Amino acid sequence: MDASINKAITAIAPQLQIWRRDFHQYAESGWFEFRTATLVADELSRLGYQLQLGKEVINADDRMGLPSPEQLAEQEKRAIAQGALPQWLSHFSGGFTGIVATLDTGKPGPTLAFRVDMDALDLNEDLTQQHRPHAEGFSSCNAHMMHACGHDGHTAIGLGLAHILKQFESQLIGRIKIIFQPAEEGTRGAKSMTTAGVVDDVDFFVAIHIGTGVPKGELVCGSKSFLATTKFDVTYRGVAAHSGAKPEEGKNALVAAAQATLALYGIPHHSEGSSRINVGVLNAGIGRNVIADHALMKVETRGETNQINEFVYQQAMNIIEGAAKMQGVDVDIKLMGSAQSSHPSPQWVNFISHLAQNKIPELTSIVDDKGQAAGSEDATYFMERTKALGGQATYLIFGTDLSAGHHNERFDFDEDVMSVAVKTLATIALSLPEFEQGHHDE
Amino acid sequence: MDASINKAITAIAPQLQIWRRDFHQYAESGWFEFRTATLVADELSRLGYQLQLGKEVINADDRMGLPSPEQLAEQEKRAIAQGALPQWLSHFSGGFTGIVATLDTGKPGPTLAFRVDMDALDLNEDLTQQHRPHAEGFSSCNAHMMHACGHDGHTAIGLGLAHILKQFESQLIGRIKIIFQPAEEGTRGAKSMTTAGVVDDVDFFVAIHIGTGVPKGELVCGSKSFLATTKFDVTYRGVAAHSGAKPEEGKNALVAAAQATLALYGIPHHSEGSSRINVGVLNAGIGRNVIADHALMKVETRGETNQINEFVYQQAMNIIEGAAKMQGVDVDIKLMGSAQSSHPSPQWVNFISHLAQNKIPELTSIVDDKGQAAGSEDATYFMERTKALGGQATYLIFGTDLSAGHHNERFDFDEDVMSVAVKTLATIALSLPEFEQGHHDE
Amino acid sequence: MDASINKAITAIAPQLQIWRRDFHQYAESGWFEFRTATLVADELSRLGYQLQLGKEVINADDRMGLPSPEQLAEQEKRAIAQGALPQWLSHFSGGFTGIVATLDTGKPGPTLAFRVDMDALDLNEDLTQQHRPHAEGFSSCNAHMMHACGHDGHTAIGLGLAHILKQFESQLIGRIKIIFQPAEEGTRGAKSMTTAGVVDDVDFFVAIHIGTGVPKGELVCGSKSFLATTKFDVTYRGVAAHSGAKPEEGKNALVAAAQATLALYGIPHHSEGSSRINVGVLNAGIGRNVIADHALMKVETRGETNQINEFVYQQAMNIIEGAAKMQGVDVDIKLMGSAQSSHPSPQWVNFISHLAQNKIPELTSIVDDKGQAAGSEDATYFMERTKALGGQATYLIFGTDLSAGHHNERFDFDEDVMSVAVKTLATIALSLPEFEQGHHDE
Amino acid sequence: MDASINKAITAIAPQLQIWRRDFHQYAESGWFEFRTATLVADELSRLGYQLQLGKEVINADDRMGLPSPEQLAEQEKRAIAQGALPQWLSHFSGGFTGIVATLDTGKPGPTLAFRVDMDALDLNEDLTQQHRPHAEGFSSCNAHMMHACGHDGHTAIGLGLAHILKQFESQLIGRIKIIFQPAEEGTRGAKSMTTAGVVDDVDFFVAIHIGTGVPKGELVCGSKSFLATTKFDVTYRGVAAHSGAKPEEGKNALVAAAQATLALYGIPHHSEGSSRINVGVLNAGIGRNVIADHALMKVETRGETNQINEFVYQQAMNIIEGAAKMQGVDVDIKLMGSAQSSHPSPQWVNFISHLAQNKIPELTSIVDDKGQAAGSEDATYFMERTKALGGQATYLIFGTDLSAGHHNERFDFDEDVMSVAVKTLATIALSLPEFEQGHHDE
Repeated sequence: MDASINKAITAIAPQLQIWRRDFHQYAESGWFEFRTATLVADELSRLGYQLQLGKEVINADDRMGLPSPEQLAEQEKRAIAQGALPQWLSHFSGGFTGIVATLDTGKPGPTLAFRVDMDALDLNEDLTQQHRPHAEGFSSCNAHMMHACGHDGHTAIGLGLAHILKQFESQLIGRIKIIFQPAEEGTRGAKSMTTAGVVDDVDFFVAIHIGTGVPKGELVCGSKSFLATTKFDVTYRGVAAHSGAKPEEGKNALVAAAQATLALYGIPHHSEGSSRINVGVLNAGIGRNVIADHALMKVETRGETNQINEFVYQQAMNIIEGAAKMQGVDVDIKLMGSAQSSHPSPQWVNFISHLAQNKIPELTSIVDDKGQAAGSEDATYFMERTKALGGQATYLIFGTDLSAGHHNERFDFDEDVMSVAVKTLATIALSLPEFEQGHHDE
Repeated sequence: MDASINKAITAIAPQLQIWRRDFHQYAESGWFEFRTATLVADELSRLGYQLQLGKEVINADDRMGLPSPEQLAEQEKRAIAQGALPQWLSHFSGGFTGIVATLDTGKPGPTLAFRVDMDALDLNEDLTQQHRPHAEGFSSCNAHMMHACGHDGHTAIGLGLAHILKQFESQLIGRIKIIFQPAEEGTRGAKSMTTAGVVDDVDFFVAIHIGTGVPKGELVCGSKSFLATTKFDVTYRGVAAHSGAKPEEGKNALVAAAQATLALYGIPHHSEGSSRINVGVLNAGIGRNVIADHALMKVETRGETNQINEFVYQQAMNIIEGAAKMQGVDVDIKLMGSAQSSHPSPQWVNFISHLAQNKIPELTSIVDDKGQAAGSEDATYFMERTKALGGQATYLIFGTDLSAGHHNERFDFDEDVMSVAVKTLATIALSLPEFEQGHHDE
Repeated sequence: MDASINKAITAIAPQLQIWRRDFHQYAESGWFEFRTATLVADELSRLGYQLQLGKEVINADDRMGLPSPEQLAEQEKRAIAQGALPQWLSHFSGGFTGIVATLDTGKPGPTLAFRVDMDALDLNEDLTQQHRPHAEGFSSCNAHMMHACGHDGHTAIGLGLAHILKQFESQLIGRIKIIFQPAEEGTRGAKSMTTAGVVDDVDFFVAIHIGTGVPKGELVCGSKSFLATTKFDVTYRGVAAHSGAKPEEGKNALVAAAQATLALYGIPHHSEGSSRINVGVLNAGIGRNVIADHALMKVETRGETNQINEFVYQQAMNIIEGAAKMQGVDVDIKLMGSAQSSHPSPQWVNFISHLAQNKIPELTSIVDDKGQAAGSEDATYFMERTKALGGQATYLIFGTDLSAGHHNERFDFDEDVMSVAVKTLATIALSLPEFEQGHHDE
Repeated sequence: MDASINKAITAIAPQLQIWRRDFHQYAESGWFEFRTATLVADELSRLGYQLQLGKEVINADDRMGLPSPEQLAEQEKRAIAQGALPQWLSHFSGGFTGIVATLDTGKPGPTLAFRVDMDALDLNEDLTQQHRPHAEGFSSCNAHMMHACGHDGHTAIGLGLAHILKQFESQLIGRIKIIFQPAEEGTRGAKSMTTAGVVDDVDFFVAIHIGTGVPKGELVCGSKSFLATTKFDVTYRGVAAHSGAKPEEGKNALVAAAQATLALYGIPHHSEGSSRINVGVLNAGIGRNVIADHALMKVETRGETNQINEFVYQQAMNIIEGAAKMQGVDVDIKLMGSAQSSHPSPQWVNFISHLAQNKIPELTSIVDDKGQAAGSEDATYFMERTKALGGQATYLIFGTDLSAGHHNERFDFDEDVMSVAVKTLATIALSLPEFEQGHHDE
């Protein structure tokens, strides 16, 4: 197998770069992945995968942080102009930009799922010659949308993996699903795919990321450093009044937001683990001489466990409502995103670790976890659901050199990582019979 | 009349000083005026006044800022040890230290009322030789009680007035009441006497004060510069927890108080007039390493009108309750005092002004008001009630030289003012027939 | 005179409406009055007035709240497209949109100045049939600019007055200046004209306003109800950091602004008069999961006197800088506008009051002041300067019916007021010899 | 050895109880341990230990949270009345209540140190029959002082250990120091003994505690769960003013404290570990109607590492000073206590763990650490100093049943733990040659 897979990987490497750079150039942020999704669907369809698209894999009510219908319609037009394939577009229209591609080997065996994400960030890309994507002509042509987190690479890896698996189909067992998720940024999309049942039949689950500070050549086999998170918008609505003439007639939404802000940052630390709170954005008021009648706060809570996150969130609700009462204003709280904490399945991690050590020489360092909790990931919804139904799940990080940190306007990565990732994931699929064997023996 | 009253005033002047200095030495703060009240009652009784005492003139439920039963009992004991007259004490026991003395001339005519107050401040008196009361041996012997506002003088004036009126009884008409009120400091006492009906039969009402920055020789005939006020204590009760080991288990009363404090000071200004808010005292917490489970705030609101004060008070209630909700703590709000805004009756002010100009040569400057609003006075309850029932009311200020500002530990005043005040008040009573005449002619 | 002036006023009335509606339709907000200014200059030039324009009457350094050079250039282009007269435009280019027109009678006599303002508000006009300007086709064609305060009428009055005065030039004495001021909204323009010396030679000064709640037919002859004010923008700059991964690396500008906000509203009330503070706008932060690295607050202080306003402003400076220190962020404070408190000259008010009563039958109610302080006006700079140099000054308000309050998107006024105003102002000019006479006799 | 030491332990057990109950009854809080220290010194002296007392072992300048000279003098009198031994008292006078007892075997070998603490808490003991110390007649006779943390037991263990070591002196090597430390509560005393050089010659160091939730029969051999901490008092001094009459003249210390409080709780979480902040006490203001001129805050910071604690402390300093600037008040910050984070020496922990398992059958469970960080301990100063000079250090916790949590007014413990502790500590000393041997072999 080793020789033939190496050959296949070598053959597909140039295509990985082409895909990645195309997605990079036409970066689409969360729920706007219209062009990306049609290209992905078309490629997978041509390869012969069974496809589930749009509303089949996305629960409309659980989409979080969805843009307005007007914005969605506008972006759909933009996508068409940029080459979205009309024959596939209707499936994704209105913010249903998810795809699940299934390869059913016809042979008995477990269901294995891989998940990649497709969305860009709300960010303007650097347009200087120092930034390779610009120097080499594939920087984002969409204002305020940029692949600065590597999801362009993830999508390319997903497509490359689909190619390889198809080539080696005869050596596979059971069923393999490749999940292409929208709107991971802001942890907005995974919940809606999870509650649509996408992993309800999955026995083994793998999500991936590249970079995140892990050095080139290293594989993190069971990243558990995810904080549970809840993201929400708070809108206070008060009453405007002339601040000189009738200050007593106002109900000050800006002051309510300021009160809430200070109290939110003061939510008690939790003795059982890390927590976070942030009021990242506050926009309030209409004019210097008017008592502010509205205020919008973009808030997020995090916790090392779901329980800690829930503690912080409940405290936040009390604070936000209490501040409304203090100033006599109304308040509206809208859920914008969420993710869970999740620990990978030890046996599954262990299996992948050994596999990587023995079969992927490109990986020179194999570790279980990279330590310190940092961000959040909504792949945790898939992981927790898989585990809850008796399956095993993990989260892999493929190290690579970065030109700048994630979410930076000069973010770029060493594209070699894509081949390594495709090879590793394909090897996992091809080696699954061994794990099944070992697993049943215990 | 002039000659004889001058003679009478001259005769009583030394006694005014004796009384004042006795009350000064045995200063008793609000609801603790046990010794003072028994001496006053005894003197008035000997003069032949009809007396209403204690519960007859004080509505128990409307007493505000009443000390605890234990404190009242302890102070009653202290008063006995300091010469309170046992035969009168039972009337005042338990915090009913008010007296109304009535002189019924038997002749037809209106009812005229004078009100003085008797309580000292919670303050330690200066005990240096620079402070006359100490140098001359009449500084307060009671810790944390000091006559630093002149009520010792007011009480002496009330007694002196009672003497003079009795001497000139044959020239008087109608009925004259002298009201000796407890607990004016903190505006705690007047409401309870008002709702007990003390001025329900009063046609003309005069309250007095000495000093307040008015120069010696000046009379303010119709001070209207009183802010309505509400005074209350706020107690937050949370849950203590070890701040290192289990911070998430606490409910932080100290933080609730801090939140409330900042919001209280931020209550909107009112376009219709001045307002004030103050959190004068905040005591919270039990130990450095414990989440504070209680907090006590001493708060007061003020307004140029009752409506403005009510606006501030209602905003304060929302804030205080909202802050409780923010931190998940309980809150208890206890009314501790209140006063109203009140405008004096113009005709009555005008009459007194002319009288003073014509008959009291000691008064070299006569003004209606002294301008800028400043403090609060619960005599406003008597004034508003008198006016609401069709009578006329005013508030007089007799200027005098002060050694230090009111509420200062070195406060003292030029005692000459007492004779002038007694003479003026007696002259008002003696001249009432003229006003009645003029009044009816209009 | 009466008959002839009435005839002249009747004749010009239609033109007043035409002017007003033209200015209304091409509303231009502060420092952008390019089209308005060129039309005004052209009209005045044709009438034969001596003109001082742009930098001659505006001190560049004292302009406050000036838009960016880019915005000024863009609006200048817009103005040209809307009919600004190119021959005059260079004078006003770059934000120097002020005009002083002088009629020198050649006869000895004092200098009399009238001041009107020309700028619109930053507001979108109501575009429903219920709103007359829209129903009758003269609603603003400029987005976010609307004459919702009546300055369109003021400018028309200024032009009408120029016409009438020219017609009656032979009856006038001394010199008459008509000041057309930019950027009154936000109190940004007057200071720059005052320090340019525009009223340094003025003996008698009159500023005007229409509406403001004064009923039709009423004239306020000496409005003194202006609060001194200072308007400024506060920018906090901190350091962004990922709120989940590295919260300790952030310097939170949003929190600094929230801290400052609460403290600003808590600035002590002042015993000598009214004060105000408002944080009307607060915009902070870049993303939900990023520690906010910037915050912008639009703030204003006010005071019944300049001293009180200065007190509030100084407290605000301490608070704003202290909050920066608390959070370790930088702060920048930019002055955006200011006005003074000013009391009109009693004799001058008295003269105008008698004049209005005797000579303007359209004015059925003449009052000195309208009471309660409310807003601010930078005409106070002209008033204070005139008075400081020995002249007399006042501020007139001409009552009129309004369809909605000032600064409301449905604001409109009964245009009859314009004729009344022109007549009154012309009558003042024509009667000045009488005042001079009376004045010197005293 | 086993048999003889068991016999010795059995023999001393009753005396351990007698000592513990005596110290419990005459509970003395930090820097007031006059009676305790004299009794300890006397006992150790009679046993033949070399003593260093008071200023010999305490660096005056590094004492934190020292009571006033008046309080120290008063408590010294109290101690004499309660049986403090006059012959020893002079050493401890003025708050120097520390003792180091040294047993020099004369044989070569390392220096081993044991540290116990002697102070009680500021707490009123429960005086009901449900509380054993009261039911059995040894509850604290000192108001507001109670041994609610077990230091009475620690002191007894220290004396018991001194007895046993003396009995087995011939089997010991090197030098053994027993450190009796004052003022551990509030982490006020250890630093002053450390900087006095008390452990500068120590090769092996052991501090102990009983209880803390560890079950009876369990030994924690290397507790590392201590947070670094800094404890300090903040005093704001402003200017008082009458809140009704002259609010603008005040400088509000209470508001400064409220501002600081909210910001302190909002100090960013740290990505490298736990942190804590607490404002446990806030006392401000003098009267309801006075702008508060002073405020006292009792604050503490904590961190999982010294660096994290230092981060929180530095942020706190900025906040506290910024809040002073905001309100124009002065601020004074006084250090009241501090402790460090410290990790025990692995080899030394390992040695003790094996020893306990093999030689102390009473210990049925031996663990290295008890997990979750909780409180702070100033024994960490001794540990860090010992390690910095090349020695090894650890912190032992002996499990025991508690009647109520530490710092609770009903705290009591199963006194059997004292024998177990003495036996374990003595066994460590007696086994040291083995460790030395093993140690050198490596």
